[in-house]
Amino acid sequence: MTIKTTSVEKKTKGFSDVIDITNDVEAFIKKCDVMNGIATVFIPGSTGAVTTVEYEPGLKKDIPEFVEKILPRDAYYHHNETWNDGNGFSHMRSALFGPSLTVPFENGKLTLGTWQQIALLDFDARGRNRKVIIQVMGE
Amino acid sequence: MTIKTTSVEKKTKGFSDVIDITNDVEAFIKKCDVMNGIATVFIPGSTGAVTTVEYEPGLKKDIPEFVEKILPRDAYYHHNETWNDGNGFSHMRSALFGPSLTVPFENGKLTLGTWQQIALLDFDARGRNRKVIIQVMGE
Amino acid sequence: MTIKTTSVEKKTKGFSDVIDITNDVEAFIKKCDVMNGIATVFIPGSTGAVTTVEYEPGLKKDIPEFVEKILPRDAYYHHNETWNDGNGFSHMRSALFGPSLTVPFENGKLTLGTWQQIALLDFDARGRNRKVIIQVMGE
Repeated sequence: MTIKTTSVEKKTKGFSDVIDITNDVEAFIKKCDVMNGIATVFIPGSTGAVTTVEYEPGLKKDIPEFVEKILPRDAYYHHNETWNDGNGFSHMRSALFGPSLTVPFENGKLTLGTWQQIALLDFDARGRNRKVIIQVMGE
Repeated sequence: MTIKTTSVEKKTKGFSDVIDITNDVEAFIKKCDVMNGIATVFIPGSTGAVTTVEYEPGLKKDIPEFVEKILPRDAYYHHNETWNDGNGFSHMRSALFGPSLTVPFENGKLTLGTWQQIALLDFDARGRNRKVIIQVMGE
Repeated sequence: MTIKTTSVEKKTKGFSDVIDITNDVEAFIKKCDVMNGIATVFIPGSTGAVTTVEYEPGLKKDIPEFVEKILPRDAYYHHNETWNDGNGFSHMRSALFGPSLTVPFENGKLTLGTWQQIALLDFDARGRNRKVIIQVMGE
């Protein structure tokens, strides 16, 4: 049984930036030299999230527009009174989408669909170097 | 330690169809003959999702009505310009609900509540034979 | 390889109460005496959820206000006709946020960000003693 953890850093623009991290996950599975198990992707920090999406230019715009509609940047958030940092919308979007994703792999290959990528969503109110945890557990 | 992966196919009607797959997950745990561990359910493809729900006729209507309200089928999506396939709403709903679910089991039994079922949500714009990955890891 | 499962009970006020359960998860990892692996947090029952959030008084109010906006308590839900129990909003909020969270740990420590806590969300229409499953798998 192998359990290995790595972290990668991704430069983002914040504001619901969508970053394809599929290659990072695939590369780490290959490096771990395991055939079957799970890859867990986890975003440390409470203004990011991870999900899967068809990574193409249209959806990269649709995601920011959707979250702006249901959790607008300029709406009132109690969070902003706690720290006066103005990113209540970032925290709420992150809690909604969630920070963890678990993808099974088989014969060394993620069980993703053909048009399905693993995507980091950075909801923060500024560009960041965003850390992503990838953990492989399998044999 | 046992790691076993299977896939089941479910006939769906698309358009936020809700399909109970609890029995499939339970049956696979039994077949694997493991007592403690996790069952990971993963939907390959970027127009489906998995969550838990009390599987009853009312919520089977509430889920489609809710997603139609926050991500309407006929709204403008940039995605539809990329492929001209008109299912931008399906992709957005899928990214929001997410493609993976991890359920611990103990003494061979899923730790679900009494009125809680594992549900495949098919958000696609047509009926499909939808593949679901079930992976059991435990001992 | 260690696989251990426990459950903790949390007294909640229902109605989108947000409860920090980070310490419970950390304590169980310590008790299991494992260094690397995953902690799976799972909420049995279809009116609760789990996510991560910066646990501070502002967001504890922002979460209930947000879910009240997109899934209002007094809206019409088909679910309420099935059981006449009036908590259709609770079920829908739970299905949206989801019942499971997987957090990798390394060197005995969860890979959470500094301002990121694991939070139980109780969407039920009454206070409860809410059971949370914590399972540690690692070595």
